[in-house]
Amino acid sequence: MSIETTIVEMAKAARAASEKIARCDSDKKNEVLLKIADKIEEKASKIKDENKKDIEFGREKGLSDAMIDRLTIKNSTIKSMAHGLREVAQLEDPVGAIVKTWRRPNGLEVSRMRIPLGVIGIIYESRPNVTIDAAGLCFKAGNAVILRGGSEALHSNQALADIIGQALSESGLPEKAVQLVPMRDREAMNILLAQEEDIDLIIPRGGEGLIRFVVENSKIPVLKHYKGVCHVYVDDGADIEMAKDICLNSKVQRPGVCNAMETLLVHRLIAPAFLPEMAEHFAEAGVELRGCFETCRILKTIKEAEEEDWHEEYLDLILAVKIVSNMTKAIEHIRTYGSAHTETIVTTDYERARQFVRDVDSSVVFVNASTRFNDGGQLGLGAEIGISTSKLHAFGPMGIEELTTTKFVVFGEGQVRE
Amino acid sequence: MSIETTIVEMAKAARAASEKIARCDSDKKNEVLLKIADKIEEKASKIKDENKKDIEFGREKGLSDAMIDRLTIKNSTIKSMAHGLREVAQLEDPVGAIVKTWRRPNGLEVSRMRIPLGVIGIIYESRPNVTIDAAGLCFKAGNAVILRGGSEALHSNQALADIIGQALSESGLPEKAVQLVPMRDREAMNILLAQEEDIDLIIPRGGEGLIRFVVENSKIPVLKHYKGVCHVYVDDGADIEMAKDICLNSKVQRPGVCNAMETLLVHRLIAPAFLPEMAEHFAEAGVELRGCFETCRILKTIKEAEEEDWHEEYLDLILAVKIVSNMTKAIEHIRTYGSAHTETIVTTDYERARQFVRDVDSSVVFVNASTRFNDGGQLGLGAEIGISTSKLHAFGPMGIEELTTTKFVVFGEGQVRE
Repeated sequence: MSIETTIVEMAKAARAASEKIARCDSDKKNEVLLKIADKIEEKASKIKDENKKDIEFGREKGLSDAMIDRLTIKNSTIKSMAHGLREVAQLEDPVGAIVKTWRRPNGLEVSRMRIPLGVIGIIYESRPNVTIDAAGLCFKAGNAVILRGGSEALHSNQALADIIGQALSESGLPEKAVQLVPMRDREAMNILLAQEEDIDLIIPRGGEGLIRFVVENSKIPVLKHYKGVCHVYVDDGADIEMAKDICLNSKVQRPGVCNAMETLLVHRLIAPAFLPEMAEHFAEAGVELRGCFETCRILKTIKEAEEEDWHEEYLDLILAVKIVSNMTKAIEHIRTYGSAHTETIVTTDYERARQFVRDVDSSVVFVNASTRFNDGGQLGLGAEIGISTSKLHAFGPMGIEELTTTKFVVFGEGQVRE
Repeated sequence: MSIETTIVEMAKAARAASEKIARCDSDKKNEVLLKIADKIEEKASKIKDENKKDIEFGREKGLSDAMIDRLTIKNSTIKSMAHGLREVAQLEDPVGAIVKTWRRPNGLEVSRMRIPLGVIGIIYESRPNVTIDAAGLCFKAGNAVILRGGSEALHSNQALADIIGQALSESGLPEKAVQLVPMRDREAMNILLAQEEDIDLIIPRGGEGLIRFVVENSKIPVLKHYKGVCHVYVDDGADIEMAKDICLNSKVQRPGVCNAMETLLVHRLIAPAFLPEMAEHFAEAGVELRGCFETCRILKTIKEAEEEDWHEEYLDLILAVKIVSNMTKAIEHIRTYGSAHTETIVTTDYERARQFVRDVDSSVVFVNASTRFNDGGQLGLGAEIGISTSKLHAFGPMGIEELTTTKFVVFGEGQVRE
């Protein structure tokens, strides 16, 4: 069978399965999720054997140690996949919820009922645990899923997808509700992205290169963020201890992720008191600073930032630092160089807190808290499928509700239109 | 200036203007809307003079009478545009509303705040009133707008856009918040659809050809419906009088619109009692029926339907009629041939009403009411910008809220992540 035929048939099978999954009650869905969790633990050694094949193949291909690490399924990965599924089973089922209801003057009762999106395609890179995390959340929201993982993780992903398929069919549900693209060819991805009749949404998870490729080539709507150039703005009159804690946490708690701070903006009046102390903490944590001209006059030993630094998502222990004359300048900087992902103000001023929150056009805007809280779990959405920095459908962390939509349901007693 | 430069600059100017409009308070926005309404009435004769140029040009180009009719700005069109704007001024401003708020165990207060989408492109065909209706609603929701109307209405649209621009600048707001593409070339549309950095959403309004063109060529997300193949299912045991009223209203009250019924599905057991009476009403209203084999055995004089008839959006006084053995078959028919737009069941059975509503996957599902109520105004959303039959972002009639999104706003007192 050609690659094209395979993918087209997968998409059609997913569409057919989605109609059954959409009508599946919560107990049944939770039964499947718990069954997958149990099987992952039972079959841990089989999964790790398949994973070894991928690791060997990766080593032959010359993958970096970091890549091999991301690819490796450890005992802790097994545990965390099973734990994640059990948590998703605990989440409230959004499907069928009546979101809002009202009555029209002519007696029509109108309501909006939450329903699944249909079929979701997930395109991701090397981490095999995404197979389980993404499939579990999409399935709980009543959707069918097509998974296209990184080519270097094909054996691992196939082992995990087989387990999901077994759990589905043991529970009397269509196996094709969760499918994995079974080949490494890039052509398969292009064909997948053209199945707009049978796939409702594509969510790419990975580096900017992958995401740009998907956006350029997809005929299906895509929810994504390219990168997180996140800012902390330390206002004049901020509590300096609080500012230090928030800045340090935002930068170093996990520097390689999208909600870590990349640029620090500091009000001119607080800079002489704040920056030298802050720089010491950063130095202890191994953070390299790159400052604007004015910052370099205060922190004499640091490197001067170039124009590119303000655009940069370092994902590393490097931080750009800029002194601004007021909050408006800070907001302008964010608008020019930011990525609409996450911004924080540290302030004690009521009016400025309110204005920052209103005027900063990012998916999550914090007052006096670390940027690292931009995360579905941390903000109380339950598990998250990703973060969207485009405004349509979802803006910010996407939880299970963002994998659904609503339809209108209207009850009458014979009303006709005049 | 080349077409490309013109369009690119328009998009950039819209983006810049959108930042001001997003922060504009409701009173200011309402002032502008009312000012536009007044000016439209004051300058009615100027508008109609410009409209005459379009009509002459259209006659020379050989437009049909129906097209010329759609293009013509009558006194009633002037009135209805001004009235529409005054109604939009009355609508509650969605921007800045806190949609939901909750507290995390660590004390973070999380909320979702409604914000404008940013810049919206509206692409439409011949009716010049869309210029005013669409611009008014997008503007009230805090968005900048780029309008690309039908080439045959260019003078009319320009006259209306000039009035909007005057009202904006008299109120001290950026004129470029509402702009009209000033040329007829199709190239302009292609360039517009490629400005994904500066335009957040495209809404096409018009025939299926236009909409397919926009979807194929846009790099920007598109909200649209292709067509409305709407069904009424008359269940066994339905109130026959009610069923007749609903079917007649759904088909003939305004047959040329997307929420008119195109196919009637009738339960086998009620068909002999219902169909002959119903057919008489349809005959009086001038409706041509095309029936399935079984329908033709009851209504002996009608034409037999072909396979294409079940797919057809007639937009005319023609109706396909099919007898089904039960509700499940009706739902299967809808799934196979429908367009996810509008479906109605006429029934007295509680359980079937509930199941129809759950299992039919359309943007609006009615029980015992005319399909003609699928309309933002009728369902209580205020003015509508269109109907979406794709599930992402909005599904069903789109009112002012659907022209917004939400961002997360989080208040803390120094929280950092462990």
